[in-house]
Amino acid sequence: MTGTDSGLLAPVWAGAEAADLVTDEAWVAAMVEVEVALARAQAKLGVIPAAAAAAIADTVADIDVVDLAVRSRGGANPIVAFVTAFTACVPEDAREYVHRGSTSQDILDTAAMLITRRVFDVVSRDLLRVAAALARLAEEHRDSVMAGRTLTQHAVPVTFGLKAAGWLTSVLDGLTRVRGVVLPAQLGGAAGTLASYVEYAGDPSHGPLLSAEFSAVLGLPEAVVPWHALRAPYVDIGSAASIVTGALGKFALDVQGMSRTEVAEVVEPSAEGRGVSSAMPQKRNPVLATLIMAAARQVPLYATVLAQSMLAEDERAPGAWHAEWQPLRELLRSLGGAAATAAELAEGLEVFPDRLRANLSLTGGTIVSERLNVALAPVLGKVEAKKLLASLSRSENFADALRAAPELASVDVNALLDPAEYLGSTGALIDRALAHYRNLP
Amino acid sequence: MTGTDSGLLAPVWAGAEAADLVTDEAWVAAMVEVEVALARAQAKLGVIPAAAAAAIADTVADIDVVDLAVRSRGGANPIVAFVTAFTACVPEDAREYVHRGSTSQDILDTAAMLITRRVFDVVSRDLLRVAAALARLAEEHRDSVMAGRTLTQHAVPVTFGLKAAGWLTSVLDGLTRVRGVVLPAQLGGAAGTLASYVEYAGDPSHGPLLSAEFSAVLGLPEAVVPWHALRAPYVDIGSAASIVTGALGKFALDVQGMSRTEVAEVVEPSAEGRGVSSAMPQKRNPVLATLIMAAARQVPLYATVLAQSMLAEDERAPGAWHAEWQPLRELLRSLGGAAATAAELAEGLEVFPDRLRANLSLTGGTIVSERLNVALAPVLGKVEAKKLLASLSRSENFADALRAAPELASVDVNALLDPAEYLGSTGALIDRALAHYRNLP
Amino acid sequence: MTGTDSGLLAPVWAGAEAADLVTDEAWVAAMVEVEVALARAQAKLGVIPAAAAAAIADTVADIDVVDLAVRSRGGANPIVAFVTAFTACVPEDAREYVHRGSTSQDILDTAAMLITRRVFDVVSRDLLRVAAALARLAEEHRDSVMAGRTLTQHAVPVTFGLKAAGWLTSVLDGLTRVRGVVLPAQLGGAAGTLASYVEYAGDPSHGPLLSAEFSAVLGLPEAVVPWHALRAPYVDIGSAASIVTGALGKFALDVQGMSRTEVAEVVEPSAEGRGVSSAMPQKRNPVLATLIMAAARQVPLYATVLAQSMLAEDERAPGAWHAEWQPLRELLRSLGGAAATAAELAEGLEVFPDRLRANLSLTGGTIVSERLNVALAPVLGKVEAKKLLASLSRSENFADALRAAPELASVDVNALLDPAEYLGSTGALIDRALAHYRNLP
Amino acid sequence: MTGTDSGLLAPVWAGAEAADLVTDEAWVAAMVEVEVALARAQAKLGVIPAAAAAAIADTVADIDVVDLAVRSRGGANPIVAFVTAFTACVPEDAREYVHRGSTSQDILDTAAMLITRRVFDVVSRDLLRVAAALARLAEEHRDSVMAGRTLTQHAVPVTFGLKAAGWLTSVLDGLTRVRGVVLPAQLGGAAGTLASYVEYAGDPSHGPLLSAEFSAVLGLPEAVVPWHALRAPYVDIGSAASIVTGALGKFALDVQGMSRTEVAEVVEPSAEGRGVSSAMPQKRNPVLATLIMAAARQVPLYATVLAQSMLAEDERAPGAWHAEWQPLRELLRSLGGAAATAAELAEGLEVFPDRLRANLSLTGGTIVSERLNVALAPVLGKVEAKKLLASLSRSENFADALRAAPELASVDVNALLDPAEYLGSTGALIDRALAHYRNLP
Repeated sequence: MTGTDSGLLAPVWAGAEAADLVTDEAWVAAMVEVEVALARAQAKLGVIPAAAAAAIADTVADIDVVDLAVRSRGGANPIVAFVTAFTACVPEDAREYVHRGSTSQDILDTAAMLITRRVFDVVSRDLLRVAAALARLAEEHRDSVMAGRTLTQHAVPVTFGLKAAGWLTSVLDGLTRVRGVVLPAQLGGAAGTLASYVEYAGDPSHGPLLSAEFSAVLGLPEAVVPWHALRAPYVDIGSAASIVTGALGKFALDVQGMSRTEVAEVVEPSAEGRGVSSAMPQKRNPVLATLIMAAARQVPLYATVLAQSMLAEDERAPGAWHAEWQPLRELLRSLGGAAATAAELAEGLEVFPDRLRANLSLTGGTIVSERLNVALAPVLGKVEAKKLLASLSRSENFADALRAAPELASVDVNALLDPAEYLGSTGALIDRALAHYRNLP
Repeated sequence: MTGTDSGLLAPVWAGAEAADLVTDEAWVAAMVEVEVALARAQAKLGVIPAAAAAAIADTVADIDVVDLAVRSRGGANPIVAFVTAFTACVPEDAREYVHRGSTSQDILDTAAMLITRRVFDVVSRDLLRVAAALARLAEEHRDSVMAGRTLTQHAVPVTFGLKAAGWLTSVLDGLTRVRGVVLPAQLGGAAGTLASYVEYAGDPSHGPLLSAEFSAVLGLPEAVVPWHALRAPYVDIGSAASIVTGALGKFALDVQGMSRTEVAEVVEPSAEGRGVSSAMPQKRNPVLATLIMAAARQVPLYATVLAQSMLAEDERAPGAWHAEWQPLRELLRSLGGAAATAAELAEGLEVFPDRLRANLSLTGGTIVSERLNVALAPVLGKVEAKKLLASLSRSENFADALRAAPELASVDVNALLDPAEYLGSTGALIDRALAHYRNLP
Repeated sequence: MTGTDSGLLAPVWAGAEAADLVTDEAWVAAMVEVEVALARAQAKLGVIPAAAAAAIADTVADIDVVDLAVRSRGGANPIVAFVTAFTACVPEDAREYVHRGSTSQDILDTAAMLITRRVFDVVSRDLLRVAAALARLAEEHRDSVMAGRTLTQHAVPVTFGLKAAGWLTSVLDGLTRVRGVVLPAQLGGAAGTLASYVEYAGDPSHGPLLSAEFSAVLGLPEAVVPWHALRAPYVDIGSAASIVTGALGKFALDVQGMSRTEVAEVVEPSAEGRGVSSAMPQKRNPVLATLIMAAARQVPLYATVLAQSMLAEDERAPGAWHAEWQPLRELLRSLGGAAATAAELAEGLEVFPDRLRANLSLTGGTIVSERLNVALAPVLGKVEAKKLLASLSRSENFADALRAAPELASVDVNALLDPAEYLGSTGALIDRALAHYRNLP
Repeated sequence: MTGTDSGLLAPVWAGAEAADLVTDEAWVAAMVEVEVALARAQAKLGVIPAAAAAAIADTVADIDVVDLAVRSRGGANPIVAFVTAFTACVPEDAREYVHRGSTSQDILDTAAMLITRRVFDVVSRDLLRVAAALARLAEEHRDSVMAGRTLTQHAVPVTFGLKAAGWLTSVLDGLTRVRGVVLPAQLGGAAGTLASYVEYAGDPSHGPLLSAEFSAVLGLPEAVVPWHALRAPYVDIGSAASIVTGALGKFALDVQGMSRTEVAEVVEPSAEGRGVSSAMPQKRNPVLATLIMAAARQVPLYATVLAQSMLAEDERAPGAWHAEWQPLRELLRSLGGAAATAAELAEGLEVFPDRLRANLSLTGGTIVSERLNVALAPVLGKVEAKKLLASLSRSENFADALRAAPELASVDVNALLDPAEYLGSTGALIDRALAHYRNLP
C-alpha cells in the first residue's frame, strides 16, 4: 500500500506548503540533514575525517519510506532503520562515520526542530499576510458602524474596523508566540551524558564543544542540557500553535456569524468552484472559514498530547516520546493550512457597510439603550430610567415610543439615538492596534 | 508532492491492516461504494434505470487522490470534487444518475461508517487473539505467585494469572464496546428531510423506503432520523476506541513495569531486529509495549475531538463536522495498530516464574504483613499488632525479627509467612474471568 | 478557610440537585454508607457480630470535612483519614469491626459509584423532562416551516418540528447511554485478591460470597474481577456524560443561533432577573443556553482525564487513580446542571412561526433552488439547469427572475416555489422520532 | 447546602495556600477590589466624587456567596448579582457610583487576572524552593553514579546529579513561563468600545485614560485593546501551568520509578502518617509524588478548555467565556498544590548512593556495552564488535565472559568496565544547569 494521506480528509492543509514540509519524505530529508550536520561538526572537531563528512554530505539518500516505516517497528522509532538505510547509501569508506556516537533521539528530535522551524517560518510569513490584510480592513472600516453583539444579541454599536483591529491584535499575539518558541538542537547520546561522542573523541571536554558546533551547523539554539526527557519545547510548540489557530479560528467564527443568511454582512472571496454545493445552486458557503475552524478545533487537542508528554520516565520515555510525532505532524500541517487559508480569507473578504448599518437599525434604537440609560439616569433616577427603557424596548417601535414618552419630553432623543455617536474610544483603540502592528519588531 | 504518510512517525500502525483501510485510496473506494449503493437502492425502487445502476456499479474509478485532496478545498469537503471525478469515470448515459438527490454528508458519513466497521472487524479479530493469549497466560500462571504492587510498592501477593485475568477482563470490556457501537448509514439529503430524493421519486413516502433500502444494500443499520448534526455515533466510536487502547495500554504499561531491568519478570517476544538499540548491543527494549503506549496516549485525544463535534450548529455544522475526519482516521489506525501489536505481544510474552518469586521475597516477608496484622491482632490487640509490625518491618531481616519477637512466641510465624498461602480468592477470580471469556457471545 | 465552591464560577450547576450530591459532605456520607454495607455483609456472613454491624450502621458520623481534606494528604487519598475519623464516632466495642479487611480503593470507588448512580438518576429524570418537552415541540411545530441551514447558509426548507425531533433523538441517545453504564461495586482488598477479607473469614470461598453480599446490600452490580486498575467504568461514565452534554449543547447552540437578533425565531423562557444585563436594559440574553454550553464545553475534557486513567500501573496506580476524583465530581455536577437547565429551557422555549416563515422568504425563493434544479433538469438538461439557477440566484428578486425566464415558460414556477411543498419526508421522520421516544423502554 | 469543596477529592491542593486564593470568597473579594479600583480611577479622573470612591473602598462587603452563586444563574455570570449585592453594602449616597459604566466581563476578567497573579506569585516562590533543593541535589550527587534508563532498560551510566540537573532545568523552564505570562487588566465596557465609561465622562479621550489609570491602580499591565473575545491570556496561563506541572510531574514520575520496591534508590521525606496504608504496616508509599502526578495528569486538560475558549463569537461569547472559570480555578489550585508538594518532596528527598551503585552493577557490566562497542570496533571491526557484545551480553556473567573472550585478549577489559569512567560530559552538563539556575534573572 502507498498509504497516501494527502489531505483528502483535511482540506485545510491539502496542497499547503506546510503539508509538504511534514511528509514522510520531508522527515527523512531532515534526518539526513541532521546526520550530515553531525558528521560536519565531528569533522570540524577532528573526530572523523573531513573527507568522510564530505562524502556523507554528498550522499543522495535513496530510501523507500514505506518500507522504512514498517521497519521502524523494530526499534519503535524510525531512526534505527533509517540509519541502516542511509548508511547503505553512503560510500563504503565513509560508512563507519555515519551516526557516530549518536542515538535515535538526537536525530529525531533535532529533525523535528528543523521541520518545526520551517513550518513556523511559513506560518509567520502567512500570519504577516493575514495581519496586513486585517490592518487594511481596520483602517478602511474604521467608521463602518455595526452592531456589537454579546451573547448573540445586539449590545451596543462598534465598527467593523474595531473588529478587524481585535482580530489583528490576536493574530499578532499568535505571531509573537510562534516567533518566541525556542527550538533547540538535541544532542545527548544514549542517556544524555554525551558519553559515546566523548568516547570517540577521547576527551571529556568534547561534549559541549560538539554540542555547540552541531547546533551552529544547523542554526538551532543549544539547550542547557540534553532534553530527551524534558519536553518543554514540544509544549511551547503546541501552545503557540493553539494561540495561532485560536486567533484565526476566532476570525473565522466571526466571518461565519456575519455570513449567515440573515446577517449577510460579509462574504468570502469568491473563486471558481469555491463554496458551491453539489445540489443547491444558490449556495455560497463560507468554506475558507470552515476550513480554518476545522483546524482550530483539532490543534488544541494535538497540543494536549504534546503537553502530556512531559510526563516522561527516566532518561528516555517508553511511549510518551513516541506519542508526540504524529500529533506534531498533524498540528504543524493544520497550523500551516489554517494560516495560508486565513491569508486568503483576510485578503479577499468583502464587507458590506450598508448591510452593517441596516442590521444595526433592526432593533429600532435599542442598540443605544445603554447610552440612554446613562443619559436618562440623571433625569429620571437610575432605577426608573432602566425600568422605563426596559419597558419601552418591548414596544413595537422603540424610537417612536421614546419620542412619545412624557418622561422624556425634556430630552433630545434623536441625538441620543445615533449609533455613530455612541462609539466611545473606538477610534483610539483602532489606532492602538494599528500602532502595535506597525511597531512589531 | 506525494504526501506519503505511511506511519514513519507512527510505527504502531505502520504496515498494519487497519492502516490500509483508512488511506485516501480506501476512503475514495468507500465513497464509490456508497454511491453505488445509492444507485442500486434507487434502481430497486424504480427511481433510476437498473442499467444505470449497473453501469455505475461496474465503473472503475480512476481518481487521482492527490489532485482530489486539493480540489476538496473548494467545497471544504472531498465529496463535491469526488462526485465530479467519479461521474467522469461513469459511462456517459449513466452519468446523470450518479449521486442523484444526494448531498456530500450522506456520502461521507456513510463511507466513514463503512470504513469504521471494517477497522472494527479487524480490531475485534485481533482483540480475540489478545484475549485468547491472555486467557492462556491466566491459566498457565494461575499459581505463579508474585508481588502485588500498589503505588509502586510491594503490597500483598497475587499471581501472574490474576494479572492476566485482569487484562483479559479489560480487553473484553473493550471488545464488547466495539461490538456494541451502532454505525448507521446516513441518508438525509441537503438538510435531513430527504426532500431531493423524494423529489426525484415524486412520492413523499419514498424517503423512508429509500433509506431502508440504502442501508440494507450496505448492511448498515438505519438511524431513527438523519444525523448530519446529531453526532453520537462518532462519540461512541471514540469511546470504544479509548476503552480498547486504554485496556491494551494498561497491559503494555504493566509489561513495561515488569520488564524494567531491576524487575525482569517478563520479556517481550524476540524477533529479528526488534528492541535493538543502534548503539547499545545489550538492549532488549519492550518495543511492542512502547508502540501500544504511543497509541494509548493519543487515542483519547482524537476521541475528544469527536466528542466535541456534537456541538454542531443547525442542519450541518461549519467546522465541527469537518474537524472529525482526520482524527477519526488517526484514531482508527492507531486503534488497529495497537490491537495487532498487542496480539503479537500477548501471544509471545515470556514470563519468568522464578524471577516472580525472587522479587516476592525481596522484602523478607513484609509482603504478607497485612496478613500478620490480621493474625496478630487477636493476640496483641489491633493497635499493638500494627505498631509491632511497622517497627519490625524496618529491621534488617523481617522474618528473623518476627521469629525472634517474644510477643509472637505463641504464633506459627513460618506458616504465616508463605506468600502462596495468602492469595485470598485469587483462584476463584481467575475462574470468573475465564468463564466470562468463554461465555462471551 | 472554608473552601466554599458553590458554583459561583459554574452557575450551570449552582443550586442544582446534582451539585448537592457531590459535595465533600455527600462524599463522606457515601463513604459511611459503603463502610456500613461492608459491615452488614460481613455480619450476614458471620464474620463480624450482628450487633457490631448494627452499631456501625447507627453511627452518626460527625466529621469535619475541611480537616479531613487536609489529612487526606497523608495517604494521598481521603480514606485512611476518613476511617480514623469515622471509627472514632463508632461505639468503642464495635470499632475493631470497622473497615475490616478493607482497603482505601474499595471504599472510594464504591462511594464514587453510589454517587454517580444518584447523579445519573437525577439526570435521567431531567432528560425525560427535556424529552417530553421536545416531543411536544416536535408535534406542535410539525408543520412550522423554516429555513434549514447548512454551513451557516439557508439550504432547503425544514420544519421546526423536525429540528425538535432531531434534538429529541439525540437526547434519547444520551439517556440510553446513561442508563446503560454499568456502575459496579468495588471489592478487592489491598491488591485485588480479597485476601484480607478471606483471612478474617478463614475460608477461601469467602471472597466471592462477600463480594456478592456487599454488592447486593448496596444495590450495585458486581464486577467480574476487582477493577482497581481496570478503569473502564470511569470511561463509560465520561462517555455517557459527553454524549448527554453534547446532545444538550447541540440543542443550546441551535437555540442561540435562532435567538440571534437578526434571526429571532425563538426566545428563552423569561423569568425575573434572567438574561438581563447590568447596563443594557433591552437585553434578553439566551442565558440558559449559555449555561448549557458552558457545561458542554467542559465535560468532554473531564471525560478525557477519566479515559486516560485507564493507563494505570500494577495493582493500584500512583496518580492515575488519584487524578480521577475531582474531574469526576466536576463532570457529574456539570452534567446534572446542564440537564436541569435544559429541562427548564425546553419546557419554556417560545417559538415564533411567523418569524420562521419570514426568514424563510428572505432569500426570495432560492431556498428551494435544489428542487428547481431537480425539476428543471429534465426540461433544460442537468448542467444548463444548474447554471441558470446559479445565475438567477444572484438577481435582485429570484422568484421574479424565474417567472420571467423564457427558458421556464412551460414550467409552473409558482407551484415549485412554495417551501411547504418541498419538505420531503419530514413528517415521516418526525413520526419516527416520536415513536422512538414513546417506545423507549 | 454549603457546597464545601475543600480538596477532599484533590488532596494535592487541600490546605494549600493557592487553594485559599481561589475559593468563592476569594473571587468575591477580588471582584470587590476591581470595583474599588474602577471607582478610584474614575475619581482620580473626576468622573465620580472622591468621597464616593472612598466610601466604596471602605465598604465591608458582607455577601452570602452560596446565595450569590445561585443568583448568578440569572445573568449566566456572577457579576450582575454581585453588583447588586455589593451595592447594597455601600453607603446609600455612594451607591450610584458603583460599577459606573461597567460591564460584567470587565470585572470578572480583571478579578481572574488578580487571582491568577496571586497564585502565580505563590507558585513562583515554591518553584524557587524546588529549584534550590534540586540544585543542592545536583551538587551533592554530582558523582553519584547510577544507571541511566531508556525505554525501561539500563542503558549507560549517568549520575543522580545529572538527573537532578535535568529536573532543575525543566522546573526553571516552568518558572520562566509563569513569570512571562502577561495578565492584563480588562476594561472595555459592553462591547469593547469603552462607550459607557466615555459617556459618563462626556469626553471621547477618556477611554484610554481610564484604562491606563484602572490598570495602574491594580498594578496590572494594559492590553492593546479590550480582550473580551480575544483570549490569548487564558491560553498563556494554561500553557505555563502545563509546563510547570509537566516539569514537576516528570520529577515525581522519576521519584516513583526510583522508589519502586525493586529499585529503592530514593525515598520520600517521612512524616507522621504519610505514606501509610490502612492495612499494610510495612508500606511507605511515595504519596507526595502521587499527589503531584494527580495534578500533572489533570492540568493539561483544564488548559485545553482554556485554549479552546479562543473560539469566541462576536464581542462576547455565549459559552466559551463561561466555560473558562471553573477550569481556571481547578488549574490554579492544582498548580499551586503541585508546586508546594514538590517543594516538600525535593527538600526532603533521601537518596541512597549505595543502592544506585548496586543497581548499576545488576547487569554485570552490560551498562557500558556501548562504550565497549566503541572501544572494540577498531579492534574487531564495527559489525563484529557489536555481534560479539550482543552475544556475550546474554551470558551468565558478562564481565567474566568478556575477560575470557579470546578476541579481547589484547584489551584492558577491566578499565573499560568501570561505569564511573563512562560519564561523558556529565560534570560539564551539571555545571551548565547550575550556572543557568544561578544566573536566573
